[in-house]
Amino acid sequence: MDNLKPLKIIKIGGNVIDDAAALSSFLNLFSSIEGPKILVHGGGKSATALAQQTGLEVQMVDGRRITDAATLELITMVYAGKINKTIVAQLQALDCNALGFTGADANTITSIKRPVSSIDYGFVGDVKNVETSILEVLLNQGVSPVFCAITHDDNGQLLNTNADTIASELAIAFATKFNVELYYCFEKKGVLKNINDDDSVLQTITKSSYKKLLDAQLIFSGMLPKLNNCFHALDHKVSKVCIGKPEMLLDSKAIFTTLTIL
Amino acid sequence: MDNLKPLKIIKIGGNVIDDAAALSSFLNLFSSIEGPKILVHGGGKSATALAQQTGLEVQMVDGRRITDAATLELITMVYAGKINKTIVAQLQALDCNALGFTGADANTITSIKRPVSSIDYGFVGDVKNVETSILEVLLNQGVSPVFCAITHDDNGQLLNTNADTIASELAIAFATKFNVELYYCFEKKGVLKNINDDDSVLQTITKSSYKKLLDAQLIFSGMLPKLNNCFHALDHKVSKVCIGKPEMLLDSKAIFTTLTIL
Repeated sequence: MDNLKPLKIIKIGGNVIDDAAALSSFLNLFSSIEGPKILVHGGGKSATALAQQTGLEVQMVDGRRITDAATLELITMVYAGKINKTIVAQLQALDCNALGFTGADANTITSIKRPVSSIDYGFVGDVKNVETSILEVLLNQGVSPVFCAITHDDNGQLLNTNADTIASELAIAFATKFNVELYYCFEKKGVLKNINDDDSVLQTITKSSYKKLLDAQLIFSGMLPKLNNCFHALDHKVSKVCIGKPEMLLDSKAIFTTLTIL
Repeated sequence: MDNLKPLKIIKIGGNVIDDAAALSSFLNLFSSIEGPKILVHGGGKSATALAQQTGLEVQMVDGRRITDAATLELITMVYAGKINKTIVAQLQALDCNALGFTGADANTITSIKRPVSSIDYGFVGDVKNVETSILEVLLNQGVSPVFCAITHDDNGQLLNTNADTIASELAIAFATKFNVELYYCFEKKGVLKNINDDDSVLQTITKSSYKKLLDAQLIFSGMLPKLNNCFHALDHKVSKVCIGKPEMLLDSKAIFTTLTIL
């Protein structure tokens, strides 16, 4: 894969979205990264704040938001409107030619509405297909796509979709054409051995060491979906997956978690 | 200009946005138009409805909304989020490869915040520059850009911008590269001689007949900004400007207003 062009796919979430100063600092860093790059952002807490303001009841089951029609409309406004366009405008000011996307835009990410089993998650989509052709044209023009966590079913329905999954599915879809590096940025330095000790970073997790950590129940449960996404990407030709603070993107001395197959 | 490729730029507003059935019917029609095309949409009444829901006071001066920071955030959510993404998803379902834009996206439309004179309109932008290169690449790939009425100042600030103006400035910017036809769709059949008679359509308005109508005060004042945009476009090499119901786009028997220089 060494002769493929590099492509960095970077996902931000949590505190990096909610704190204006942290976001601004991240965007400075993102804009200074050379070469083709894609940003994927989560929603942060704005959606919950607007829900409270409009009197919309937030329904959670097992820590997951239930997306009824009113909630979908609200997150479409917050994710694709407020957050996405704020990021795009700030990147333009930093001379980074950003272009905002949902999965409906240029038909880039199609999902299937999650089937109802014991829980009806509502308008939540699981990624079915990623269409890279228009994105590739844009990357070759120096444009940086900025994705929010919304996809569509190609039948007119927008769907709420996990941002970590969007990042890993984009990475997988591009992995035959680019040398893809996938970065999950959040407020911790990486995957921690001890959730109460920010310096207990596991600097390398291999597929076999991950199994051992799982068996010993040493991984904080909140990290499991993210780590499963990471290994899923590595299993599909993504060359590198890292988890940590945004600094890992540029600071050669930064400590973070790198996931590898071997 | 006959050897230039055709490009249709179509603006919808008013009732066509607010009424889901009218919007759906328009999108069906839009998706069936052959060749390169750009859609520009206004905001409709959703922003006012959400403002009421969130307790935000709508400030109007001379029928124009004053865009303070909270109002800008709200219209960014409604225009760029809710309305734009609903349209994009519906067009994808109709096999029209739509891609949503604000002027910040791909740095397409830069504006200047309107200077404060007797009235401070707040975060309102007057178009300064339209950058067509990425849009042209997308049009050549069969993608239809869908613009909402938001631009940016290239310094990180989003700005509320008149959708009619966005349509005419896009048309002018493309007029050296395409044979551009500009269509303003609304709920009336065209420019009316008598505002109370929907059938009193002025089917042709030339620059000289427009002056006579203005002198005789025969143009409804609400139409003046739109008509000024139209003649501004014709003065800058846009080949054709029409005003009427969406049907004018496909129905050869439809009655509507065509504006011409001579």
